[in-house]
Amino acid sequence: MTTRPVRVVAFGGGHGLSASLRALRRSAAQLKLDITAVVTVGDDGGSSGRLLAERDALLPPGDLRQALAALADDQPTTQRTAQLLQYRFAEIPAVRGEGPDPLVGHAVGNLLLLGLMEMLGDPVQALDQAAAMVGARGRVLPMARHAIGIEADVRGADPDRPHEVVTVRGQHAVAVAHGHVEAVRIEPADPPVCAQAIAAIDEADWLIFGPGSWFTSVLPHLMVPGLAEAIMKSPARRLVTLNLATENETLGLSAADHLAALHWYLPGLRVDVVLADGKWVGEPEPVRRAAEALGARLVLAPVAVADGSPRHDPGSLGVALVPVLGADR
Amino acid sequence: MTTRPVRVVAFGGGHGLSASLRALRRSAAQLKLDITAVVTVGDDGGSSGRLLAERDALLPPGDLRQALAALADDQPTTQRTAQLLQYRFAEIPAVRGEGPDPLVGHAVGNLLLLGLMEMLGDPVQALDQAAAMVGARGRVLPMARHAIGIEADVRGADPDRPHEVVTVRGQHAVAVAHGHVEAVRIEPADPPVCAQAIAAIDEADWLIFGPGSWFTSVLPHLMVPGLAEAIMKSPARRLVTLNLATENETLGLSAADHLAALHWYLPGLRVDVVLADGKWVGEPEPVRRAAEALGARLVLAPVAVADGSPRHDPGSLGVALVPVLGADR
Repeated sequence: MTTRPVRVVAFGGGHGLSASLRALRRSAAQLKLDITAVVTVGDDGGSSGRLLAERDALLPPGDLRQALAALADDQPTTQRTAQLLQYRFAEIPAVRGEGPDPLVGHAVGNLLLLGLMEMLGDPVQALDQAAAMVGARGRVLPMARHAIGIEADVRGADPDRPHEVVTVRGQHAVAVAHGHVEAVRIEPADPPVCAQAIAAIDEADWLIFGPGSWFTSVLPHLMVPGLAEAIMKSPARRLVTLNLATENETLGLSAADHLAALHWYLPGLRVDVVLADGKWVGEPEPVRRAAEALGARLVLAPVAVADGSPRHDPGSLGVALVPVLGADR
Repeated sequence: MTTRPVRVVAFGGGHGLSASLRALRRSAAQLKLDITAVVTVGDDGGSSGRLLAERDALLPPGDLRQALAALADDQPTTQRTAQLLQYRFAEIPAVRGEGPDPLVGHAVGNLLLLGLMEMLGDPVQALDQAAAMVGARGRVLPMARHAIGIEADVRGADPDRPHEVVTVRGQHAVAVAHGHVEAVRIEPADPPVCAQAIAAIDEADWLIFGPGSWFTSVLPHLMVPGLAEAIMKSPARRLVTLNLATENETLGLSAADHLAALHWYLPGLRVDVVLADGKWVGEPEPVRRAAEALGARLVLAPVAVADGSPRHDPGSLGVALVPVLGADR
């Protein structure tokens, strides 16, 4: 029997999206999946930030690279290529002191994506070529066709002035800011979207949001008007995978607050399933009520790594995803 | 009928080796070939030189990268990967003036090979992985397991002192030096060789020398004691492909002198075939005699590009190689 694959679009960035994609790769052993990752392009720090500033890169490559590595085929050659993409030039003790080594801090995959974008002039062609190089079991697309900025109004960013609201600019600065994020914006407010991402959303069976840094990797997709419109219009069902613990940017935000934030930034958003880890989510009732407010049922499953740290285990998350994504359409 | 492939080892570096390997790839349409490139590792200029100085690279990647690109499979994806390896970061007008961009001048493939060498710690593993990434139709190996230096005694390097002999250090400086090269040396004199290169030479049917910068890309192999010994011992037949025109480093050297230089640096070297372009070689008799002095017959064939510039045409060179390499063993 050849069934049509379940078409899944996963939104996010960084380690959270990476965990989600690795989990989907595991689910693909039991479920025929067609995976598209739609990745944040707001990174302005580290290697990506330098490539934007110094080479006017079309897109910050870091989050895209991580998504590609997560989707790499299991063959030894493609796994080694993925490992190369993730390899970061460290300082070399032997030559240290002869001036700053300009490669330190760059991941090879960032330079490779930069080269492809410059050479081909088109970010989607560049990503498709990089995907072919790692034998990616899915497609990686950017949430906008050029880099976007992220800024947030944060109350108490300065611990000496706990009630003052200041605007924090840059994905990295927002992600590590202390205090309470009152509002997040993207800049420009209406960036050009990637047609291939819109097409994938239109044809999807499932849209998956999270896990990931809520304000800087998960919510920004909902702020891009072109994406938000496609998400609202899509007949796909929607899954939200909650984070296990709060990060700096979401300090003071409960699991229920995370769900409420989705509604805040995209008021009409209907959700079908909220997936959380019972051990991490705390008292389930408020979360269940927040899920139901979005139209979703709450599914509790053990999806964290075994060592007690607040990270998703791709294997366990994959197991939890199978019955959700495989449910009758 | 499945015949054993003709096992070919091509020695050289830079554009010359690249032309030779591209020609072999064309010959492979008519002849079953098993190709190994043994590549000079003396490059100390440009991108490679910076990676040696700034990151203590195991090997200068430039010549190795060019050989890999020349052997890339014809599939669109692997050809685009090869094109990426060759892509060189140029200056970006828009951001120029904000300080030097540290990536300018680096070929993506050099950074990729550097990353693989650092990550895997072994140059041969790194080259095999890069070869897999371009679907290489052959293997690329270094002529030594670490970077070597090249120096030359050059008479008249200073045009004001035409009779003075000065020592010119560095492959790049030697390659562009004016005057007459009296002697070339490698440093260290006995570098550690690559066991896989020795094994390929032992099992080869043909060893191919040239075309290429004679003093800096072709002769250095004969100066590595471990390689020279393997070459002398190998039962393989030997082909020398002569250059079309003289470069700076070989100004004043005739085609016959090029052959004599092989004998000078490896006195016992026996050669079977010398391949030259009749239009470029000039009066053939001295070349024929120089070839015969090495034990070789001279084969004249049109192997240059059609536009009159002194470059080998891979297609024509490939056509010329088929009857030579395919002759009864």
